[in-house]
Amino acid sequence: MTDDKVYRWIGSSPVRPDGIDKVTGHAAFGADRLLPGMLHGLILRSPHAHARILSIDTSAADRIPGVLAIVTGTDFPDVTAAMEETGESQIDVRDLARNVMARDKALYHGHAVAAVAATTTTIAEEALRAIKVEYEPLPAVLDIESAMAEDAPLLHEELRTKGLAEMPARGSNVAAVVTYTRGDPEAGFAASDVVIEREFSTPTVHQGYIEPHAVVAECRPDDQATVWCCTQGPFVVRTLTSKVLGWDVSSIKVIPSEIGGGFGGKTTIYLEPVAILLARKSGRPVKMVMSREEVFRATGPTSASRVRIKLGASRAGKILAAEAELKYEAGAFKGSPITPGCMCVLVAYDIDNFRITGYDVLVNKPKVAAYRAPGAPMAAFAMESMVDEMAHRLGLDPIRFRLDNAVREGSKAAYGPKFPPIGLVSCLEQAALHPHYQAPLGPNQGRGVAVGFWFNVGMQSTATLNVQEDGTATVVTASPDIGGSRASMALMAAETLGIAYERINAVVGDTEMAGYCDVTGGSRTTFATGMAVIQAARDVVDQMRRRAAKIWGIDPDQVTWRDGQAIPPAEHATEQSLPPLDFAALAKSAAKTGGSFVGRASLTAQGAGAGFGVHLCDVQVDPETGKVDVVRYTAIQDTGKAIHRAYVEGQMQGGAAQGIGWALNEAYVYDAHGIMENPAFLDYRMPVALDLPLIDTVIVEVPNPAHPYGVRGVGETPIVPPLAAVANAVFDAVGVRYCDLPLNPPRVLSGLLPAAG
Amino acid sequence: MTDDKVYRWIGSSPVRPDGIDKVTGHAAFGADRLLPGMLHGLILRSPHAHARILSIDTSAADRIPGVLAIVTGTDFPDVTAAMEETGESQIDVRDLARNVMARDKALYHGHAVAAVAATTTTIAEEALRAIKVEYEPLPAVLDIESAMAEDAPLLHEELRTKGLAEMPARGSNVAAVVTYTRGDPEAGFAASDVVIEREFSTPTVHQGYIEPHAVVAECRPDDQATVWCCTQGPFVVRTLTSKVLGWDVSSIKVIPSEIGGGFGGKTTIYLEPVAILLARKSGRPVKMVMSREEVFRATGPTSASRVRIKLGASRAGKILAAEAELKYEAGAFKGSPITPGCMCVLVAYDIDNFRITGYDVLVNKPKVAAYRAPGAPMAAFAMESMVDEMAHRLGLDPIRFRLDNAVREGSKAAYGPKFPPIGLVSCLEQAALHPHYQAPLGPNQGRGVAVGFWFNVGMQSTATLNVQEDGTATVVTASPDIGGSRASMALMAAETLGIAYERINAVVGDTEMAGYCDVTGGSRTTFATGMAVIQAARDVVDQMRRRAAKIWGIDPDQVTWRDGQAIPPAEHATEQSLPPLDFAALAKSAAKTGGSFVGRASLTAQGAGAGFGVHLCDVQVDPETGKVDVVRYTAIQDTGKAIHRAYVEGQMQGGAAQGIGWALNEAYVYDAHGIMENPAFLDYRMPVALDLPLIDTVIVEVPNPAHPYGVRGVGETPIVPPLAAVANAVFDAVGVRYCDLPLNPPRVLSGLLPAAG
Repeated sequence: MTDDKVYRWIGSSPVRPDGIDKVTGHAAFGADRLLPGMLHGLILRSPHAHARILSIDTSAADRIPGVLAIVTGTDFPDVTAAMEETGESQIDVRDLARNVMARDKALYHGHAVAAVAATTTTIAEEALRAIKVEYEPLPAVLDIESAMAEDAPLLHEELRTKGLAEMPARGSNVAAVVTYTRGDPEAGFAASDVVIEREFSTPTVHQGYIEPHAVVAECRPDDQATVWCCTQGPFVVRTLTSKVLGWDVSSIKVIPSEIGGGFGGKTTIYLEPVAILLARKSGRPVKMVMSREEVFRATGPTSASRVRIKLGASRAGKILAAEAELKYEAGAFKGSPITPGCMCVLVAYDIDNFRITGYDVLVNKPKVAAYRAPGAPMAAFAMESMVDEMAHRLGLDPIRFRLDNAVREGSKAAYGPKFPPIGLVSCLEQAALHPHYQAPLGPNQGRGVAVGFWFNVGMQSTATLNVQEDGTATVVTASPDIGGSRASMALMAAETLGIAYERINAVVGDTEMAGYCDVTGGSRTTFATGMAVIQAARDVVDQMRRRAAKIWGIDPDQVTWRDGQAIPPAEHATEQSLPPLDFAALAKSAAKTGGSFVGRASLTAQGAGAGFGVHLCDVQVDPETGKVDVVRYTAIQDTGKAIHRAYVEGQMQGGAAQGIGWALNEAYVYDAHGIMENPAFLDYRMPVALDLPLIDTVIVEVPNPAHPYGVRGVGETPIVPPLAAVANAVFDAVGVRYCDLPLNPPRVLSGLLPAAG
Repeated sequence: MTDDKVYRWIGSSPVRPDGIDKVTGHAAFGADRLLPGMLHGLILRSPHAHARILSIDTSAADRIPGVLAIVTGTDFPDVTAAMEETGESQIDVRDLARNVMARDKALYHGHAVAAVAATTTTIAEEALRAIKVEYEPLPAVLDIESAMAEDAPLLHEELRTKGLAEMPARGSNVAAVVTYTRGDPEAGFAASDVVIEREFSTPTVHQGYIEPHAVVAECRPDDQATVWCCTQGPFVVRTLTSKVLGWDVSSIKVIPSEIGGGFGGKTTIYLEPVAILLARKSGRPVKMVMSREEVFRATGPTSASRVRIKLGASRAGKILAAEAELKYEAGAFKGSPITPGCMCVLVAYDIDNFRITGYDVLVNKPKVAAYRAPGAPMAAFAMESMVDEMAHRLGLDPIRFRLDNAVREGSKAAYGPKFPPIGLVSCLEQAALHPHYQAPLGPNQGRGVAVGFWFNVGMQSTATLNVQEDGTATVVTASPDIGGSRASMALMAAETLGIAYERINAVVGDTEMAGYCDVTGGSRTTFATGMAVIQAARDVVDQMRRRAAKIWGIDPDQVTWRDGQAIPPAEHATEQSLPPLDFAALAKSAAKTGGSFVGRASLTAQGAGAGFGVHLCDVQVDPETGKVDVVRYTAIQDTGKAIHRAYVEGQMQGGAAQGIGWALNEAYVYDAHGIMENPAFLDYRMPVALDLPLIDTVIVEVPNPAHPYGVRGVGETPIVPPLAAVANAVFDAVGVRYCDLPLNPPRVLSGLLPAAG
């Protein structure tokens, strides 16, 4: 436990190392790379949500002067092996390849069908128009119910549902069924004094990162490619691109640009293999930059969902049984976040009897991608609404009710293992005591409470640390900095080395210069890459101790490292001849004493610490229009040790803001043909600064014992509670339990009208 | 001794890793970088060889639309501290800063006086013309004699000669006097049967690298700069640039581009600080590319020299005494390679009595820079000519005579220490036995022999080695690849890891991504950076052994590494359960067994091995025109263990070619005002393929015991013998001893005419 440790750097909020670069325009994002002779690539996309591709005629486009390369599905290898291991996880390469470029069928409106590279984007656009694709339109399935209907049109005829007792004979749009059970749910419900049941729904929503996907690819004649792109993980881009192309991973070099947001959406690939093939065909570098419309239509939003919850409790306020049925849209290829959804839905509560069933459902929409705590917000929306309702029905304070049922250290998580030290109870206690929770409400105002959870993960990270001659140190990792990891790496390195934060330069390497790192995602970077940085710094400290021992002619074990200094043993320290040698002095004399210092570490991080949060939300509902305004918001979270407090607060505020957008306004609006009607920020309504109050934060620090400084991971938990927190506040304000998001004015008004009438 | 070791990869000549990049134009050299909004910078240069700068008026230039920044000497800090430590060596920062941009005086024709950055080079040229500089021309000293004359005009009034018994009261153009003595030279000459004495001269010559200096600089508002440039050492560029700007080294990031030759000339800086200041002033990236004319006029050629040698020998053929006086031009700032010249001049021979005196002489010419074995070729030209003459006078075979006087293991080098195992005797024996030495000569043909020596150096290197999931490994160093170091690093890594050469990707990092490496120069890279690579590979092998032990549940000490495999101890190996685990398998399973593998090493390399070579040269002299053709040439050299044989041969051939150019044609031709008259390859006559025969090579491998694989260093020794080898061959052909280079037709003819007449 590092709880009461006193740190010199950790927990402070020093200036952000990338701040000046970003505010002055020096930071180079995905679209900011220029190469001599560079072409511009564009993608032709399916106008149908579901169609067989009968033929593609590129001959007219090929003849346009300035068009230097065209690729279609036939230019890609026919990847047949489906599931392949990549590090610790598995991917379906066949699906991934077909999402990157359609083969026999287009499976959603916007699905890539062909791509061109030309000397200008104008010529490339002309070429797209000149490509003739013959389609046989097929009926599209656009929601969970129709996808699961008995006679539904099938996206993939060969797909068989996984997770059933026996392999089904017929195809289905349900890719998998997941179940978790404990105890005897029926007996639990029978023993309950109150049983409630409702079904909830959430629409397709997008991460809405500001920076569209962008890539510049080069390809040598011997098929050695270099890719510059905005990504959460250059090594993962390398792995996935190599699999789609059928190349060795070492034949592709991926350089991560600065990244303008990802939130999980930049953990996979879309343009990268296409740009490489265009570069290969043309012999020229190729740049591809998505439009905002393409980002909406053809990258990975998160699942629309339907979640039904049945909850039973005793009059005394103990939850005795739960049943949860979750159906998540995967989009056109299997793989919604249904498993984490099921693992999270009941996770905050200690319930003896439950059954959780999850369905991964294919629909003719873009394949979903990870989005901040994938699968958890929709599950929490349903469960936390039901918990709120149960507290209401039982006449209990919603925080008190949650405290009486909350998991704590030693509780068995709904998904299996026992919890090590966790902070849910602390967060609930902080929430109950917070002035926000005591503050009076005005007319048409209501207050909601909701709990959120995210696992946080470990995975692989590597770090090297080079000591410079001026006593500074450069930390190299391949973890792109999205939410402040340069600062958190520098703080942990400074703390470990015992030198000033300003003396550390944390940089993001490419797949050649840096060792393997998994994606910046899963809230793993400060935890896992941070652990590698700490170990690399310890490697340097060890070398410095040895160097000092060599200089002093004593045994290395006699040298201690404290406050950035090698300290001789007491008997020497008293002599004038052996004053301590500090980091800067050892760095400066390195050339003469045996060479400069370089530390390294590589690990598969174990022991990621679960993160719980509690959000308090006050809303004001306009009874005339149904418009909901969030008027006060407080995010309380067990972050483990907060390394850079301001960034931690920023993560909590950003997650809350995204969750509020999801609750109130965001949604893909589809027409009857499966065409998204609002693919622009004007119509896809994300919250802007004017829509939100200052989001207050309370950082609870229950250290993670598996991390040297107690880090858990921060970024995902805060998007989980807002959906229910907002809905519960609306209920509190107007007495209507809304089960379908978003709570935009028409929806809220339609709930108010019958109540009023 | 690794002499009779059997290697799997070392000593082979696999395909060059950068070959495809270079022949297809994918390799990015100094001038190949584009940045958005980039400006073009040009330098205004002094039209006088020596002048006081009275005023610089940039106001008219400043008003030209498209001119975004102008800098002059006053924009640079007034660096007053002169000698500063940089790693293991010292530099005179004051001189360096004033060479980069003149302050009160212009000291050579072409000296930088001001610089502009504009949106186009045309506008930048216009701006240069609009800058008004008022000069007070001063008398220029253009050769050693006039510089050393009693009443010579002084370049630096404040300069006092170093190395004299007492500090002189008056200023001088002689910056330093160096002496080495042994025994009693006068007694040695008195005991000699034959004493000969001559003075030799060589002109200013340039390295003639194909790629002109080029840089692109960016500078953030908080004075964090990034420099892309062609250099032999990004860390040295960082150090020197930071000192000239008065910045911390860690505020500058240097990215080395591909490099089109350097030969020592790209171990210092010219454009880098200027481009940073222009970028800082303009707020835009700035590119600066020298013209060929600028390269000749304003970068660092090597010294013109005068070397007088007196040699005494017994009739039996033993050299009894030597006296050598070397005067090297430093150019406009102190620092000719006079010290290595003095250390090398007698180094090949075991002489009991000698006196060596060297003079570092300032003249109004560009400051010299390192050029392949700096200082050694001019010294060897004089000494090897004299040894040839002495052998001739004594009627001895020139190889026999050298063998009788040659240094060998245990001999005391002229500069002090005793030689460890060296290969001079082996090379001389190989030369005597070579068919070339036995072959008959035609009419007007002659044969010359000469010996060359270079120290080879160690210095600092760092390497990291990342193992990829596909069982390949990436070697990262900051040693730019000039003569094939990617291949030699890959070969040594492959040998150490026990995997195929093709599985290694050796890359060149920048000052952020890679650890400290000194310049690629001094023939140190394969030796010192190679040693770091070997140690980093051993670090990985050690980790793999531990990982295998963990997998097997046994002690790491029980695991051996052989042929790229972790081998269990014998008792386990016989069981089916413990088959060996090879590199690829350990790499592939790394994520699940504890994380990927990264090795690191950093060192100040000790024990660089001296390299001797013997060259045989046949020439044919046209008696009508004086034109000398090299008709056969053989370079024999002790390279230590040759890592990549084809590259080693290439180094030997390239050095010989440059030396032949120096001998026959190359020279700066100055007018009376100190203006170089031939600043282009048309008039500065370097040998082209048509001028040279195939240069035959004989690699002698006396392993260096200080290197794991016996490496010495290869690149510099072969430029040392050719000057004398050619001159000795011309003597053999026409009977005239030419003491002044180059041996171009006018010079040779002028020697023949009196002989004929």
